[in-house]
Amino acid sequence: MAIVGVIGGGQLARMMHPAAINLGIELRVFAESEDSSAHQAAYRIGDYNNLENLLEFSQGLDALTFDHEHVPQPLLSALEAAGVKVRPSSKALIHAQNKLIMRERLTALGVPQPAWQSASSAAEIETFLAIHGPKIIVKTPIGGYDGKGVRVVSDIEHVSDWLENIDQFGGALLLEQKVEFSSECAQLSARNPSNHFVTWPLAQTIQASGVCSEVIAPFGDAKLQAEAIRIARAISEDLGVIGVLAVEMFVTSSGELLVNELAMRPHNSGHFTQDASVTSQFEQHLRAVLDLPLGSTELTHRHAVMINLLGVNDRNNLVDYFPAVMESNPEIKFHFYQKAARAGRKMGHLNLYGDDAAELVRIGKAARELIYNEGAEN
Amino acid sequence: MAIVGVIGGGQLARMMHPAAINLGIELRVFAESEDSSAHQAAYRIGDYNNLENLLEFSQGLDALTFDHEHVPQPLLSALEAAGVKVRPSSKALIHAQNKLIMRERLTALGVPQPAWQSASSAAEIETFLAIHGPKIIVKTPIGGYDGKGVRVVSDIEHVSDWLENIDQFGGALLLEQKVEFSSECAQLSARNPSNHFVTWPLAQTIQASGVCSEVIAPFGDAKLQAEAIRIARAISEDLGVIGVLAVEMFVTSSGELLVNELAMRPHNSGHFTQDASVTSQFEQHLRAVLDLPLGSTELTHRHAVMINLLGVNDRNNLVDYFPAVMESNPEIKFHFYQKAARAGRKMGHLNLYGDDAAELVRIGKAARELIYNEGAEN
Repeated sequence: MAIVGVIGGGQLARMMHPAAINLGIELRVFAESEDSSAHQAAYRIGDYNNLENLLEFSQGLDALTFDHEHVPQPLLSALEAAGVKVRPSSKALIHAQNKLIMRERLTALGVPQPAWQSASSAAEIETFLAIHGPKIIVKTPIGGYDGKGVRVVSDIEHVSDWLENIDQFGGALLLEQKVEFSSECAQLSARNPSNHFVTWPLAQTIQASGVCSEVIAPFGDAKLQAEAIRIARAISEDLGVIGVLAVEMFVTSSGELLVNELAMRPHNSGHFTQDASVTSQFEQHLRAVLDLPLGSTELTHRHAVMINLLGVNDRNNLVDYFPAVMESNPEIKFHFYQKAARAGRKMGHLNLYGDDAAELVRIGKAARELIYNEGAEN
Repeated sequence: MAIVGVIGGGQLARMMHPAAINLGIELRVFAESEDSSAHQAAYRIGDYNNLENLLEFSQGLDALTFDHEHVPQPLLSALEAAGVKVRPSSKALIHAQNKLIMRERLTALGVPQPAWQSASSAAEIETFLAIHGPKIIVKTPIGGYDGKGVRVVSDIEHVSDWLENIDQFGGALLLEQKVEFSSECAQLSARNPSNHFVTWPLAQTIQASGVCSEVIAPFGDAKLQAEAIRIARAISEDLGVIGVLAVEMFVTSSGELLVNELAMRPHNSGHFTQDASVTSQFEQHLRAVLDLPLGSTELTHRHAVMINLLGVNDRNNLVDYFPAVMESNPEIKFHFYQKAARAGRKMGHLNLYGDDAAELVRIGKAARELIYNEGAEN
């Protein structure tokens, strides 16, 4: 019986659990609290900043992997020095932890990305604004997700607080050109230590207020899809990524792909694979970190659509309003994260599949509205 | 958050767990031992013959259901009297617990079944043998499964031990005509307390030494399928079954269906639904016992095939030999029960789906042989 440890008890760890049960893998989650999303697989409650806790947890694991990117590098290195199979490795994961390091590496690799620059002073930001303005993107190199740590900036005043506390961010901010994109997409891939590399179909990602709202797969023409795979493969192999890699990209009006973000774990853009791919991203991640042969990434249907469910308020966790949709839509697949309700929080998602993508999106959004409206009224 | 309790920690409870995680249902398993197949969802280890244990376990449950049929009737009635939502109810479940009661009820219902008779003496068996011989089937009314408690009898000597201990079986044995069948099949259905009734496609079941070996869906022509649904619906509604009902049937050489066995829970003949149906039998069972609307039972592919993996010896639990098949067959879905190895024991299964049933069976059997041979040699 292989044993996989996961640091972080969020919904990504939670959704690895069904795959682990099917494959006969023991999943041990190092969770933040008793009521974490992945509490049913929780093996230890602890602080991921505590090396002693992490070392104890890592005993007997065949592989250690992650639900998030927050474990500090010195601790990852110490685990590796102690012989723990950290997957992805600290050397790979740094690129998902620190956006400046990611940008530098992708530049060296020749991967297309927005114009970018590191900045430590107001003057550097003013200069970048003058060239790439009227609006630019400023990011904190570490700690951002779902729109947090990312600002659209047209005036230096918009980031004065970050500049004042720049030491918190390692002494520099990341400046990026604000790309005028026609759409956004994500290329999901997986790689195991034997260098078996696979990709799922390119997926369109639709954001609302900086948070993923819908995902539609497949996306793009053959040329765009081939370019997306080329980029994902270059990153996965050059950075030595083990496990799932999600490459989020802009599609410019001229049809060029520019890399926006990287995640080295199962990713929101890949949730459609749970119900519409032969192998889900969660199963694949477990296979990859254990160096098992990877499964087929074929879509089982012509189109797949994922609809995110965000908290509508701080009272209702939305699951109570699933039955109305179960009644109207016996074909929809439900995924609930069992997290405390909070407005805007990712609470769950719906998966749909079939022959007509536009129809699936329409049905999925109507289902979400039903859940939201019932949740908001109660 | 709805809470479902399951009595019994076998593979059926284990396979309810992924569905529960997805739906945001808390699954609490009342398991026999720490190392039961469903140990990851174990909430309590106890003895299902102990009413106090069962009552304690049942506190706070939205529904109580089962992994097996072994909880004695007086205990089920006591739980119901205490207000526990026992699903299926004791009154329904008795027909899956006691084959004589099942035969009597199906006779009253007019459901086609083999000629049968209750017998308490050698003389009665001799008479039945004289009419229906040279071979008949003798069953213990309670406690049989996977060929246990079932004998092919051509001489009274073959059941002399059962006759000597007939009080153990409630004072009677069940005699059945040995049906000369052309094939066997199973009709899987589900029903909720709101009388929403659904059926999956009729499936062919292929047995070896009294144990299910392969399942192939769909099976039969439109007429046979309609008759199978008619029988399943009559049983489910008349007996008041809540949850999944599997009706195992013989197909005679003249194309008649005769009911062989009933199970009121997810069943081996329905494992193909995990990967090849919109809603698996495990998800549906949870929906049904909670009186949630039932999900679509459509096949997502033209054909589905399930290949059982039985223990080859008492040393190897077979999961170690999955990687060879993962390498050769990235499209196969693996299910492992994490049970101690024992020759002939159900250890796991493989699911396949696609356009050509015969090809799927061929591929699945070859995969099983690879696992068996590696397991036997080590």
